[in-house]
Amino acid sequence: MLEQVEQYLTDNADRFVDELKDFLRIPTISADPAHAADMQRGAAFVRDRLADAGLTAEIVPTEGNPIVYAEWCGAPGAPTALVYGHYDVQPPDPLEDWISPPFEPTVRDGHIYARGATDDKGQSYTHVKSAAAWLNTHGKLPVNVKFVIEGEEEVGSNNLDRFLEDNREKCRCDVAVISDTSQYAPNMPAITYGLRGILACEVTVRGPSQDLHSGMFGGSIANPVNALATMIAALIADDGRIQIPGFYDDVLPMTDEERQRLANLPFHEASYLKGLGVDATFGEAGFTTLERRWARPTCDVNGLIGGYTGKGPKTIVPSKATAKISCRLVPDQDPKKLTAALEEFLRSNLRPGLRMEFKSFHGASALLFDADSPYMAAARKAIARSFGVEPVMIREGGTIPVVTTFRGVLGVDTLLLGWGQDTDNLHSPNERFKLDDFHRGVRASAALWWELASNGSD
Amino acid sequence: MLEQVEQYLTDNADRFVDELKDFLRIPTISADPAHAADMQRGAAFVRDRLADAGLTAEIVPTEGNPIVYAEWCGAPGAPTALVYGHYDVQPPDPLEDWISPPFEPTVRDGHIYARGATDDKGQSYTHVKSAAAWLNTHGKLPVNVKFVIEGEEEVGSNNLDRFLEDNREKCRCDVAVISDTSQYAPNMPAITYGLRGILACEVTVRGPSQDLHSGMFGGSIANPVNALATMIAALIADDGRIQIPGFYDDVLPMTDEERQRLANLPFHEASYLKGLGVDATFGEAGFTTLERRWARPTCDVNGLIGGYTGKGPKTIVPSKATAKISCRLVPDQDPKKLTAALEEFLRSNLRPGLRMEFKSFHGASALLFDADSPYMAAARKAIARSFGVEPVMIREGGTIPVVTTFRGVLGVDTLLLGWGQDTDNLHSPNERFKLDDFHRGVRASAALWWELASNGSD
Repeated sequence: MLEQVEQYLTDNADRFVDELKDFLRIPTISADPAHAADMQRGAAFVRDRLADAGLTAEIVPTEGNPIVYAEWCGAPGAPTALVYGHYDVQPPDPLEDWISPPFEPTVRDGHIYARGATDDKGQSYTHVKSAAAWLNTHGKLPVNVKFVIEGEEEVGSNNLDRFLEDNREKCRCDVAVISDTSQYAPNMPAITYGLRGILACEVTVRGPSQDLHSGMFGGSIANPVNALATMIAALIADDGRIQIPGFYDDVLPMTDEERQRLANLPFHEASYLKGLGVDATFGEAGFTTLERRWARPTCDVNGLIGGYTGKGPKTIVPSKATAKISCRLVPDQDPKKLTAALEEFLRSNLRPGLRMEFKSFHGASALLFDADSPYMAAARKAIARSFGVEPVMIREGGTIPVVTTFRGVLGVDTLLLGWGQDTDNLHSPNERFKLDDFHRGVRASAALWWELASNGSD
Repeated sequence: MLEQVEQYLTDNADRFVDELKDFLRIPTISADPAHAADMQRGAAFVRDRLADAGLTAEIVPTEGNPIVYAEWCGAPGAPTALVYGHYDVQPPDPLEDWISPPFEPTVRDGHIYARGATDDKGQSYTHVKSAAAWLNTHGKLPVNVKFVIEGEEEVGSNNLDRFLEDNREKCRCDVAVISDTSQYAPNMPAITYGLRGILACEVTVRGPSQDLHSGMFGGSIANPVNALATMIAALIADDGRIQIPGFYDDVLPMTDEERQRLANLPFHEASYLKGLGVDATFGEAGFTTLERRWARPTCDVNGLIGGYTGKGPKTIVPSKATAKISCRLVPDQDPKKLTAALEEFLRSNLRPGLRMEFKSFHGASALLFDADSPYMAAARKAIARSFGVEPVMIREGGTIPVVTTFRGVLGVDTLLLGWGQDTDNLHSPNERFKLDDFHRGVRASAALWWELASNGSD
């Protein structure tokens, strides 16, 4: 039966790319309220394609952007897989760095370039098409499938938890499936068994009620930009260690075995750095680069603005400065506890006469899965069939908060199956997805439904 | 003769304000190349008003914005005063903080509100009208007067030095007169005998060739915003002392006598802080607030930008960050030497893997004048006559680089006669000038020409 599905996928490959382009043309930027109507269009696109495939599909309104829910439950006794994805994307700026416009998908050198090409429109769409292929070919799937495709992943998934809590029965499943991670390297598909968590916040330091002449007033009061810089500088020591009190207290150390497994993965540091455009690493002393990316926490300023940032000089003492700060967390760090610790630490470094405002955006705990579950085994077989090579078992540095929710609310593990590459410019200009990876992802997904029926349990 | 001039000033006061409004409507923002045509209009306005007054007036093109030169030299044997001013203004942003638009002059509570109201359109215009008053009333002035009104003061006066060097004979004078400072307090007119110098620069820190996903890459390389914050934090210690090596080496200490004189000036720190909107001072330990503002150097970030600064979170490692930094200098600090020291210090604090670009905008040395010259005596008499009170002798924290040039190129001292107030929001939203101060400034200027003829020497 799988062979017939695979033939269908081969025959319809070009059409799938055209459909993906239509999806990518919708600027579903969830961080920007100006795109509210585009979010509705994005949700409708997903709903329509799932309905076309033969699933029961609906748009579920939330207090924010809508969630698309769909299901096909015609395989009683077979396991149920719940596919999660998101149709929202990161803001595209800086716009001037894009070679082709972010919302005009363009194929160059075997890649499709657009915001969302891989994160997560392109990757999540593989599962939509694999379900469509089974239903078109055989009128049924080997397993029951449900889809939850949300529109707020890039801004903290604020309404997803509520949806899942309110719809526990509807969303009941045996395993979740998400393609929002990466292969380890080109032609090295991977299953991700660990994710970092996150906390994200914004801190504003306010001084004088307005910008002041730096000659008349400079020297007499604290400058909010200098002061915020001092607060940020205090976060990380020269050895890369984060200085927030208690920050490392709950960090689960890596086992020697895991450190060895990571050390065995091919990793060419010079190529890695060249790819990023820098000539040296920097991070927590005592850990390798892979360990720092996957299994050690971070503290990064994501953006900072204060004072005059136009052309030429302007000699002022600015009235305020604002920074967005996020920490990537590892098991068993607690986002809430550390958000409070970060706020307290920043406040303790505030210069006299200034006020500080602190806003917490969102938080999610890190996760580690059981790599030996039957679902993991099914995914390994499906990937090996489509890619022609056994997947490697890796951790990833990113955060998929919904995975924590799936464990907490639905009681299930998640298969994190990455079809893309780290070099696909996620969250950056010129985001892309290799078309071969897109097609192999669809085939692996089609095989996964087959293997889950053999390996999984109801 | 002076009484007749003063009567003319009284009779024409309202017209002078209307003319000033026309001047303030021209958005002569020298930092913004988009306003090139407005700079030409600003220069033409000044030239026309000086010509109307009866002076020989011309617009002198430069490689940047034009300089207006005018003269009336009909008093052979009498001293020659050269009035300097500038028709360019600071950028008006943040625009949303203005109560009335910056280029629509509006009178409220006895003040005229507009960008440039005091700095320096309003203040410099007092001398234009005093000359007009003498020539209208008597057909002559008691002294010879020359005007040099430039359009690049707010961006470093890049073409003024060249003009003065090329026109030494034309600009020959006995004393320069500038109204671009402030009274010490309301109804406490002042003569400024000291100014701080300045150095201003822009530093850019570059890391990865583009913004990176903070989950995938965070922890492995230096973050340019965190790194720039660390470099800026290193500039000032918790005790307010600037940490650039050698920064204080050439600082001329205040004499005990001067410290006593400053201590005797009325200064209410709580009111000062309330006016600025902060609740504590911060600055170099061991000095009073007035000393820190007038006679001690500073290091302020005037603006900083890096990464994502829109709404909501964006979890990236930014590719770059840029800060504008300026230092106010005191005698005998050398701007060139300290610009180099600042660059070197920043570079020495750069995190591994990052690149730093450094751009010097401009520099000017600080100055101290002889408070007992005959010109100073003439100015004290003129101010006492117009304001009804003896002026106090003060220093100021701001920078007027042309005063250094006047000493170096023309060999003359400068009378710094401030008609405005520190609270007039120079370089800030809602810049203003009290109309009473404007009119008293015009009368003091008219009296100055009279007193200089009695006190000065050719």
